[in-house]
Amino acid sequence: MNFPKSIENLITEFMKYPGVGRKTAERFVFHTINKLDKEEVKTMVQAFIDLKDNIKHCQVCHNLTDDDVCHICKDEHRDSSIILVVENAKDVFSIEETSQYKGLYHVLNGVLSPADGIGPDDLFLKDLWDRVSKDKVKEIIIATSSTQEGETTALYIKRVLENTDLIISRIGYGVPVGLNLEYADQLTLSKAIENRKKI
Amino acid sequence: MNFPKSIENLITEFMKYPGVGRKTAERFVFHTINKLDKEEVKTMVQAFIDLKDNIKHCQVCHNLTDDDVCHICKDEHRDSSIILVVENAKDVFSIEETSQYKGLYHVLNGVLSPADGIGPDDLFLKDLWDRVSKDKVKEIIIATSSTQEGETTALYIKRVLENTDLIISRIGYGVPVGLNLEYADQLTLSKAIENRKKI
Repeated sequence: MNFPKSIENLITEFMKYPGVGRKTAERFVFHTINKLDKEEVKTMVQAFIDLKDNIKHCQVCHNLTDDDVCHICKDEHRDSSIILVVENAKDVFSIEETSQYKGLYHVLNGVLSPADGIGPDDLFLKDLWDRVSKDKVKEIIIATSSTQEGETTALYIKRVLENTDLIISRIGYGVPVGLNLEYADQLTLSKAIENRKKI
Repeated sequence: MNFPKSIENLITEFMKYPGVGRKTAERFVFHTINKLDKEEVKTMVQAFIDLKDNIKHCQVCHNLTDDDVCHICKDEHRDSSIILVVENAKDVFSIEETSQYKGLYHVLNGVLSPADGIGPDDLFLKDLWDRVSKDKVKEIIIATSSTQEGETTALYIKRVLENTDLIISRIGYGVPVGLNLEYADQLTLSKAIENRKKI
């Protein structure tokens, strides 16, 4: 026997989320029925709609923002001579939480992965080349994950930029090998930025 | 630093769900941004709206249904002389999955819990007394959880009905003590119904 259709549908939707199996999805749906009133579900629904309507990529660094240019790129107190390159917008927020880094960012929106058919043109790399040629950038810190794809991407960026005057560094020890950046604690992330080494 | 407001809002909403902490909520939101397109989010939103619009309590047994009377109460092949009393609608679906029980249900929508101020009037108990007096009910199986509140509720029902001709039983061994019914496997639930004992 199945649940009524409306329950079954929302279970299916919840199961699209990472780490949510059928049992967890069922708990979520029954929580929605039993613990959230109509007004609260409306708020939830509105939050979904607002997210998709308002969140976009910053025109400069591709960080997520509800504006055209993100508040980091807009901030004149930040050191615009350093660009820290990350895989995803989430990594920007993780690093910002350390309050250690005062430069700018560049979000690639992924990593090079020939096996999955993801090449340089699929990432925001062209914009990075534009930024380093136009702006007074002195240093690039590459903070892609220490996975194989992350390392490949770091190497690729280094090779493209190695004949320029730019200092190219990689965040240093501190980030455990094989771990995604989003799982690293703030101290580890601070250390990693502090101990970056030239590549 | 916080996330943009639209991201922060949906994180807050996800954190209302059981077992969802801040990190998990963040993952869910970034999954929504990165992996679900506008159409998929629309489907999700619609599923929430449909759930709140369509799902109601069965007028007879208070099971969840998208109809006025649930398909179990409507089913003429079921044995209407037995009513199995459960705490929540979710328990109905758990027991239905065993395909062992052919009687009807009655959903209390909670358990007696004086500490939380939940008394007999807060549960669908009056409807249960109505059903047993009106219909040709011969047996009541009480399947509340084996927690203190579940046991108290079972005892309360037994006391109210003990001067009637009804056979009153409690689901038997099989359900581990202290476990909520929804976590029990199907075999355990089947056993528990089979081994019910008169109280």
